[in-house]
Amino acid sequence: MSPRQAAPVLLVALGGNALIQKGQQGTIEEQFANLREPIAQIARLSQRHRVIITHGNGPQVGNLLLQQECCQDVPRLPLEILVAQTQGQIGYMIESSLDNQFMALGLEVFKPLVSLISYVVVDRHDPAFANPDKPIGPVLSDEQAAGAPYPVMRTAKGWRRVVASPQPISIVEKREIKRLIGMDFIVICCGGGGISVVRQGRHFAGVDAVIDKDLASSRLGLEVGVDIFCMATDVPGAALDFGQPGERVLDSLSLAQARRHLDEGQFHAGSMGPKVRAALMFLEGGGKSALICSTSQIEAALAGKAGTQFVP
Amino acid sequence: MSPRQAAPVLLVALGGNALIQKGQQGTIEEQFANLREPIAQIARLSQRHRVIITHGNGPQVGNLLLQQECCQDVPRLPLEILVAQTQGQIGYMIESSLDNQFMALGLEVFKPLVSLISYVVVDRHDPAFANPDKPIGPVLSDEQAAGAPYPVMRTAKGWRRVVASPQPISIVEKREIKRLIGMDFIVICCGGGGISVVRQGRHFAGVDAVIDKDLASSRLGLEVGVDIFCMATDVPGAALDFGQPGERVLDSLSLAQARRHLDEGQFHAGSMGPKVRAALMFLEGGGKSALICSTSQIEAALAGKAGTQFVP
Repeated sequence: MSPRQAAPVLLVALGGNALIQKGQQGTIEEQFANLREPIAQIARLSQRHRVIITHGNGPQVGNLLLQQECCQDVPRLPLEILVAQTQGQIGYMIESSLDNQFMALGLEVFKPLVSLISYVVVDRHDPAFANPDKPIGPVLSDEQAAGAPYPVMRTAKGWRRVVASPQPISIVEKREIKRLIGMDFIVICCGGGGISVVRQGRHFAGVDAVIDKDLASSRLGLEVGVDIFCMATDVPGAALDFGQPGERVLDSLSLAQARRHLDEGQFHAGSMGPKVRAALMFLEGGGKSALICSTSQIEAALAGKAGTQFVP
Repeated sequence: MSPRQAAPVLLVALGGNALIQKGQQGTIEEQFANLREPIAQIARLSQRHRVIITHGNGPQVGNLLLQQECCQDVPRLPLEILVAQTQGQIGYMIESSLDNQFMALGLEVFKPLVSLISYVVVDRHDPAFANPDKPIGPVLSDEQAAGAPYPVMRTAKGWRRVVASPQPISIVEKREIKRLIGMDFIVICCGGGGISVVRQGRHFAGVDAVIDKDLASSRLGLEVGVDIFCMATDVPGAALDFGQPGERVLDSLSLAQARRHLDEGQFHAGSMGPKVRAALMFLEGGGKSALICSTSQIEAALAGKAGTQFVP
């Protein structure tokens, strides 16, 4: 291998705030503007790392679901197809933002860059399918909820559709992604946690489910041999007593500490919990380095000056 | 290069009917069922060819536009983003159909397979921008047309939005695609003719335009070194006096004949015209073989037993 090919492999999992921030409506101008800061950092980091980028898609898939509810003239598409649509949308936005950053920064190395559609195998017997609990799409009226052709649940915001959130078993394109990073391509993939499919005999079939994007990224990281797994989100790191007066961000967490705080319920199910679990899964599976940081501090976190570092 | 890497490069440009056929509503079940026949042929052909697949997206992008018209609660997305969404959707459908065909056929060689988001540079001074004439999206009422925030035109179906259809200059991901087919990856790309972008100084910026997918495929074919350029559509080949009593499908066409029939108006602007022009552009640019056939006769056409063969 050439020295460049031996550069460490960095996986950055971009949280939803890299595209739409709190209080924003989510116009396309806002989304491109929000991407600029994290993507500029990733462009610079790509000079010393091989890079994989994954991303969330919650608000984007929510908007597509809302449009389906509004518009009865168009055949409804299953969730797997909407996730595929958001992979196209966000993959394009990240790829073109990276292209633009490469040009703006005048970087020496202009690496090959691809955004891949990705699907992820889940187990049809995953207990999540018996108990769908991940809210997606718009808030429904009582009437809509009563007549909905899918499972619904009353959440803090009101009635919402819920789908299963099963564990990722394997990324279908792992061979391809591994070869691409071996050739120092920058790869954008596993958007929204990947399109969920199950094996049915000799076929793949899409299922109504969403996979947590940090868990999918962790699985991808192990399958393709990522060295550094960085989850970039809208807070500076994992914190104890989050949102309370005594809140304190943790600089580092051993695996034992992380597991204990998880068990104590320190990390919320819908936000930091899956990130800490994804870090644990990655390190226990043989990964070397995992961290959680804000989207504005990716470079600082990689230099050990920000974020929460997980210590094996 | 190994013998396998030296296999001829086949580009199949799939027409819209490979996904939605005349008279169909376009449910997801219909789209997957329609893909089966062309994709099974491509899976078999991939055993002796390196393969690139491109595809149309007219009805799919039309549905997304219709949903945007219906649903005022969601921020409108520009056309470039809708095209990106259809690349995600259709890329996933083609890729998973191919995966399933590989498994079903028990083929010996299970090639690496990727579906890429692709964007295509157009010239901001292309005359098409001064005269947008490509109808997209739903038929509009007189009232909607009068208040539309975009150009509209009265078509045979009624008022519709029109956008520019500029010439493709270059496929941004051409280096990546060339390296991937060099390694015998099957590559799905340039969906819907690609996402249209213009260069603005050191940046790419999306534009409201659609690129003809056959012309984009022809350009891609020349840029990455395709040997055989096959346009698969809903008719058996290019025909003289199309739709009239004396209609006859042409087995072969020399470049001079093709150009003469084009000039005579034998090939309609919205259908066969761009395909014949794409074939001419490919062969005049140095391509070796171009053909037009039905989606059910791709293998027969490659064997010289169906379709219209262009003879340099």
